[in-house]
Amino acid sequence: MSVTKSCSVVLTAILVCAMLTGSQTPSVQEGRSECPILVEHAREIEEYKPIARKIIDFFLSGDMRGRTYKNLNNFVDSYGPRMLGSSGLRRAVTHVYRGLTRQNFSNVRMEPVNIPVWVRGTESATLLRPRLQRLSMVGLGDSVGTPDGPIRAETIVVRSFKELEALGDKASGKIVVFNQEFISYDDSVSYRLNGAIAAAKAGGVAALIRSVTNHSLLTPHTGLMYYQKGVPKIPGACLATEHADLLHRLYRRGKKLVIQLQMGAHTIQNKTSNNVVADLPGASLSEKVVLISAHIDSWDIGQGAVDDGGGLMIAWGALVGLKRLGLRPRRTLRVAMFTGEEFGTLGSNQYYRDHAAELRDFVFALESDEGVFSPRGLGFTGSERAQCILRHVLQLMTPLNATVLEVPMLGGPDLDVLVAQGVPSACLLTRNQQYFTVHHTSADSIAVLDTAELDQAAAFWAVLAFVLGDLSFEVPRDITTRVEPGMSRL
Amino acid sequence: MSVTKSCSVVLTAILVCAMLTGSQTPSVQEGRSECPILVEHAREIEEYKPIARKIIDFFLSGDMRGRTYKNLNNFVDSYGPRMLGSSGLRRAVTHVYRGLTRQNFSNVRMEPVNIPVWVRGTESATLLRPRLQRLSMVGLGDSVGTPDGPIRAETIVVRSFKELEALGDKASGKIVVFNQEFISYDDSVSYRLNGAIAAAKAGGVAALIRSVTNHSLLTPHTGLMYYQKGVPKIPGACLATEHADLLHRLYRRGKKLVIQLQMGAHTIQNKTSNNVVADLPGASLSEKVVLISAHIDSWDIGQGAVDDGGGLMIAWGALVGLKRLGLRPRRTLRVAMFTGEEFGTLGSNQYYRDHAAELRDFVFALESDEGVFSPRGLGFTGSERAQCILRHVLQLMTPLNATVLEVPMLGGPDLDVLVAQGVPSACLLTRNQQYFTVHHTSADSIAVLDTAELDQAAAFWAVLAFVLGDLSFEVPRDITTRVEPGMSRL
Repeated sequence: MSVTKSCSVVLTAILVCAMLTGSQTPSVQEGRSECPILVEHAREIEEYKPIARKIIDFFLSGDMRGRTYKNLNNFVDSYGPRMLGSSGLRRAVTHVYRGLTRQNFSNVRMEPVNIPVWVRGTESATLLRPRLQRLSMVGLGDSVGTPDGPIRAETIVVRSFKELEALGDKASGKIVVFNQEFISYDDSVSYRLNGAIAAAKAGGVAALIRSVTNHSLLTPHTGLMYYQKGVPKIPGACLATEHADLLHRLYRRGKKLVIQLQMGAHTIQNKTSNNVVADLPGASLSEKVVLISAHIDSWDIGQGAVDDGGGLMIAWGALVGLKRLGLRPRRTLRVAMFTGEEFGTLGSNQYYRDHAAELRDFVFALESDEGVFSPRGLGFTGSERAQCILRHVLQLMTPLNATVLEVPMLGGPDLDVLVAQGVPSACLLTRNQQYFTVHHTSADSIAVLDTAELDQAAAFWAVLAFVLGDLSFEVPRDITTRVEPGMSRL
Repeated sequence: MSVTKSCSVVLTAILVCAMLTGSQTPSVQEGRSECPILVEHAREIEEYKPIARKIIDFFLSGDMRGRTYKNLNNFVDSYGPRMLGSSGLRRAVTHVYRGLTRQNFSNVRMEPVNIPVWVRGTESATLLRPRLQRLSMVGLGDSVGTPDGPIRAETIVVRSFKELEALGDKASGKIVVFNQEFISYDDSVSYRLNGAIAAAKAGGVAALIRSVTNHSLLTPHTGLMYYQKGVPKIPGACLATEHADLLHRLYRRGKKLVIQLQMGAHTIQNKTSNNVVADLPGASLSEKVVLISAHIDSWDIGQGAVDDGGGLMIAWGALVGLKRLGLRPRRTLRVAMFTGEEFGTLGSNQYYRDHAAELRDFVFALESDEGVFSPRGLGFTGSERAQCILRHVLQLMTPLNATVLEVPMLGGPDLDVLVAQGVPSACLLTRNQQYFTVHHTSADSIAVLDTAELDQAAAFWAVLAFVLGDLSFEVPRDITTRVEPGMSRL
């Protein structure tokens, strides 16, 4: 860290930072740029244009065309959901491991991860009063079940944590339905994560939370939920938005609501899953690593094609494409398919613990975990100088119309540890149309994805990985940014 | 019929039919119109402008504002699905009957309809080979079940009836999956209706049909299916489009598919349901009837807010609005909430049989059964002269931006009998965004509808009913049009 710091002081002194107003496009014409970058760095990046073009062509109209979709389609059709602890995930891990080995990547390994296995079991929620109505629900990951038999309780409906607090002890002994407004995923997901804690603090016996989405066909969304030490663990589940609204309307009309909730959810400790890791070794600086990550596990109710099968396949495809083009950057490109992301980045946490000493050599980290749609650019967390370098690199993506840089990166939970260490880290930004519609639902399937868009994203990833792995200089670390645990999208 | 015919000959002789080119808007400026209408008729219609405006204002910004949505919302929330034979439907029928009675409409009656009751029972379809996958399915109305235990059979997937035929006896003993292309509802629904017949003819043991929709979140669509005399009755169900695609892909890759199908479906004969009928009696020609119809039953898996709760509420609301405005046209306006539409227009068929002698006095018939969204105009079946009158009447809907006339009417199954008798018949056309997305699914809920759009449609219905009921002349019957049984949308 101290080496990086002293370097940065020297570099700052010789930066060209004319900070032109007007156009947002970085340019080094006449030796100037809109953001702080060394002229020779900007020029060097520009020199990758032909090779970037070659890579893009290879994915869009060459041998790689259509392969990402095809591979993903075979993958999700063959193994189905890849829930932590499932045979589907085990078979998928083996498939990826064998594929990478067969393709002669280096250091291909399945690294064990100690995991708890959450089992959903059967589950149902039924409105008993004022009339019988089976509710569209799905239990939340890590929730306790109802081992002593179904909970049958009067039910209250609130719009917010604040509204629940204002009720005092009126929630005691009741099922609490949170029918929070959908503002955005990031603004509303707190109800899914913390709803059961808040309900339990108010004396509630279970929490039913409106699914975090703005489009539903009676589609419930699952996801992880939290418990808090010292607060009773009560079951948590999400309802389809339509049914959360229905309950809220009935409640507001003064009806007494009674719901019966049954959940077979339980957790088995001390199981094992695996991260899969492989390298395209660097030509000269092989100890230096550009990490390209995705997660291999998915929720149990969908195919996990979007979350995160697509991310996995573009990471893999990027390396395959570069290998087939005979392109080997100076630094090592490492793909990491992490397990257990959906249950709190278990796989990446283990990986970073197991490889703590090596992380100082991680020069850049990429993650795609928000669906692979037409690429738009990068979400990025890093210093101002790092941002400027990225802006210049993104100019290479002009043929893909994917030159946007948004700061900071949202999402990218499997990179949290690296971000905290200042490793420049980026996530794929896409022209995301449907991600949070199908997110954590049974509708997460290949049907949502498009082969041309997957090709574009794989090309984008390949260009980015190659250039970041090959530049004569490193994107500087950020020694000021810190992430709070649990801040990333889950 | 002969009276109408001889009149029409006389009228034709004195028609003004300048048939101007250019603008599609009918106009009688300078005594000319783009379509065949008597000048005095066109002028008379135009004179309804102030009253049309008054009605529209009453629904959009007067006392009726928001009432249609509110009433519909209470209705669907209170009774839930209104499946033929269910307590929900019985309670809904009583609700409508009591409401109409309380509002002092005339001749309010519940007319009995003899019905068979189809009971869904439990049902499931599971892919056993090449891997275990619970399939998203829903049994089709009138399907037989699997009373001797689940069917477990090898499965073939075809794209069309033709492809199935080409297979010869290869479908024998197998489950047949139809993964037909979605062209439009009308072009593709034949697979749902006739898939089990075609599969049985080919020796198949069950038919699984791709849901007839172009947007899915793993959402299966139910609906009626047919059997044919002399062809074995085999179970029929629809699959979510994603799962039909999944099966097709696996099949094309040469995998042997085995599916297990369990359906508890069965039918109980000789039950009773009810049509609800009520009149706003005509001021001078009360034996003449303008019929405003909708159906009160729905499928069991959704709320039936769209199909056809909205249609019911705008019919009802139109009459309530006119009554409250003290507007009573010359002819009787009759609302008919038919039962059993989803099982083959059972209620309306019975009604037309029971009232066969009165049908000669039906001067016009309206139906809304394609969802109540922002009104766009009318689908219409009738003679050229009738069309022209309608075009002029629709000019009164200019404030609603709903002046389109499309010929012939699609949909309107509860009007088939009347259309066959030449009664001018029209269906509400809307700016339909979601109808066939939620059609016959669990997502048919109030969430899809909009209060302002319901107000607009109720206003449209009220103006139309009033004007058609009040004109000094009748829209002429069409003595040439014939409908084939089963041609309408089900």
